[in-house]
Amino acid sequence: MKGFFKVQTPDELYQKLNRFKPVATEEVNIEESFDRVLSEDIVSSIPLPEFPRSTVDGFAVKAKDTFGVSEGNPALLRVVGEIPMGKVSDIEIREGETIKVSTGGMVPKGADAVEMVEYTEWVDSQNLHVFKALAPLENMIQGGEDVRPGEIVLRAGQRIRPQDLGLMAGIGKSRVRIFLRPRVGIISSGDEIIPVESFTNPGEIRDMNRYTISAMVKETGGIPCFFGIARDRFEQIKERLESGLRESDMLVITGGSSVGMLDLTLDVLQSFPETELIAHGVSVRPGKPTLLADISGKPFLGLPGHPVSAMVIFHLFGKPLLEILSGLSKNGNEYGKTLRAKASRNIPSVPGREDYIRVKLEKRDGIFWAHPIFGKSGSISSLVNADGLMKIGINEEGIVEGEEAEVILL
Amino acid sequence: MKGFFKVQTPDELYQKLNRFKPVATEEVNIEESFDRVLSEDIVSSIPLPEFPRSTVDGFAVKAKDTFGVSEGNPALLRVVGEIPMGKVSDIEIREGETIKVSTGGMVPKGADAVEMVEYTEWVDSQNLHVFKALAPLENMIQGGEDVRPGEIVLRAGQRIRPQDLGLMAGIGKSRVRIFLRPRVGIISSGDEIIPVESFTNPGEIRDMNRYTISAMVKETGGIPCFFGIARDRFEQIKERLESGLRESDMLVITGGSSVGMLDLTLDVLQSFPETELIAHGVSVRPGKPTLLADISGKPFLGLPGHPVSAMVIFHLFGKPLLEILSGLSKNGNEYGKTLRAKASRNIPSVPGREDYIRVKLEKRDGIFWAHPIFGKSGSISSLVNADGLMKIGINEEGIVEGEEAEVILL
Repeated sequence: MKGFFKVQTPDELYQKLNRFKPVATEEVNIEESFDRVLSEDIVSSIPLPEFPRSTVDGFAVKAKDTFGVSEGNPALLRVVGEIPMGKVSDIEIREGETIKVSTGGMVPKGADAVEMVEYTEWVDSQNLHVFKALAPLENMIQGGEDVRPGEIVLRAGQRIRPQDLGLMAGIGKSRVRIFLRPRVGIISSGDEIIPVESFTNPGEIRDMNRYTISAMVKETGGIPCFFGIARDRFEQIKERLESGLRESDMLVITGGSSVGMLDLTLDVLQSFPETELIAHGVSVRPGKPTLLADISGKPFLGLPGHPVSAMVIFHLFGKPLLEILSGLSKNGNEYGKTLRAKASRNIPSVPGREDYIRVKLEKRDGIFWAHPIFGKSGSISSLVNADGLMKIGINEEGIVEGEEAEVILL
Repeated sequence: MKGFFKVQTPDELYQKLNRFKPVATEEVNIEESFDRVLSEDIVSSIPLPEFPRSTVDGFAVKAKDTFGVSEGNPALLRVVGEIPMGKVSDIEIREGETIKVSTGGMVPKGADAVEMVEYTEWVDSQNLHVFKALAPLENMIQGGEDVRPGEIVLRAGQRIRPQDLGLMAGIGKSRVRIFLRPRVGIISSGDEIIPVESFTNPGEIRDMNRYTISAMVKETGGIPCFFGIARDRFEQIKERLESGLRESDMLVITGGSSVGMLDLTLDVLQSFPETELIAHGVSVRPGKPTLLADISGKPFLGLPGHPVSAMVIFHLFGKPLLEILSGLSKNGNEYGKTLRAKASRNIPSVPGREDYIRVKLEKRDGIFWAHPIFGKSGSISSLVNADGLMKIGINEEGIVEGEEAEVILL
């Protein structure tokens, strides 16, 4: 096993995640593609709308027939027909003529604007007064105005949103190619860890990381697969890693926060051929004793056992790894995952590491305030009370009261 | 049918949504409860941790045995045992004694601090030098420090996050009661609307709203159920509404943006007994011709046919309705659904209605800028290009360049 045995900064580590490749793709009906990652560019073969449409209920006209008209000086037009919704008409209107149309209905040939019904009055069964001057193209949408034929409307690598589905439906794209959801194998380790259903004997604790990590995998679009609790024995860890590797695209092991456990996990990694250690320690608090390796092209992430550390590190490195496997493009804008907030008090930090402080958010006069929650990294209740993690940069000595910083939403 | 036949403001309408009641509940294993809404308060019957735990690898001591020690002046302690991970020990340490412990392991009776292994040195096989003075409770977490027995740790009405699952696992709560996902019946209407798989004849358009609304229902935690496309005929609309009512907790019909269609939907609503019209028009653009009714206790939402209007109104009223049905408490903080951005140019508006402007976001020097996308309300591509909807309040005449406003993320 090759490897760099020194603590790295988060930024150094982020650079190295790009070695991993996205999973395979599948084709599905568009209704099954919501929130999945598109793996093909979508090109429209048709114009949208496919025909000129009215945006109001009213009368299709030649705009110039309405120039100069007013409430007191209407134009008199002859009604030569009606185009019912969903139907077409070959009639072409000429000067002085009009045709009744509905919202969304076709605007006939010859017409270049639609007078709203509110500004019209029947004179008799065939003739109509129109009272409002129209600019050309007023109250209508032209064929191809929304989408041009041959236009790339969606790009591979984006997550499919409700409006993207609407667009695909509109251009008649009923099947779409998307990336599979990456399968993430999760292993808990530690002699003291027992399943949630068990009664604890003194000294034992129930497995929390299985649940927090599984949920974070789901949140990021992956499929969590649990491979059980491994005791602190070489064979047990190795066996679970082997099962996990066979059936998953990425592996996460929690535990190993103690020195002994970390060494054991390293030993197991070393016993796999084609394994490269990418990181052994990251300058982040909480979560320093993090392991990242490449086992035959699959990412392996070793997380500290404390629930807070495990969640912080999975946020920082597990999610970006999973996004790469998911085929998500780095250019995609995913707003709403962080926000900026002001610290409600001084928060000290030590330069040389990134600190992630659990914070409770409060919105006051449109400004977010972050109240730090102090608690040991074993304290799950401190995370339950937190809305986010405030980042203190690697070169900063802390954040002073009122200073603004980024908060990762939990 | 009773009803108020006047256009209402969004705020007036929000007041009236509380008449609807949450759906029923079910009990599931906690791993199935992620992102669902909790329907019971969770009370811990145990302390967490269940025993005093070390947060480091080292030696449990009486803190006062370390008072005054230093690098040059260590204390000499007798090692009386080791507590392996996951095990307990009845040994109680006395003055001058210490016991080896691991991170997460039990701190024995008599000890009130843990010396990190880095600050110790074996003198011989039974005796140890410790070089660092400790405050009482340093490097350990007390029993019940995280969660006290009898404490309410989670409240009914919140969405279950990864850390909430971790806490439930930690206190041995393996089954949990949650609200069912509300079923939302969706009906598309309009003579021009055809299914996505069909070839269009001139004048026809494919059903986009079915897909955008279904995806927004999923996004809000509901189950969308499609009841087909209804032609603009009383019987067809009535029949689909009846099926929808039998099988769903809420109904949404799109279409009906034209005057004729709106009247038809109103006629159908009037034919149902126990129906109350709650709103007939809302002062919002786009989306004014919105219908909201209560049919035997189930919400009915009539949305305009244009995809942009339909999405805006579903964001504003459909999602809050669905959240009420889901049992979500209004006190729940759901950060990340909106952000504040500065307008990149002047955006005019008319007082007396709320305007929702499609915007593309850009982050520059930590500040979000919103670039308005102008497009007709039939333009699906304008929504695809948008990251959010910028709100212009009902009493405002617009937003000037550089002014900040709220953006609902799409």
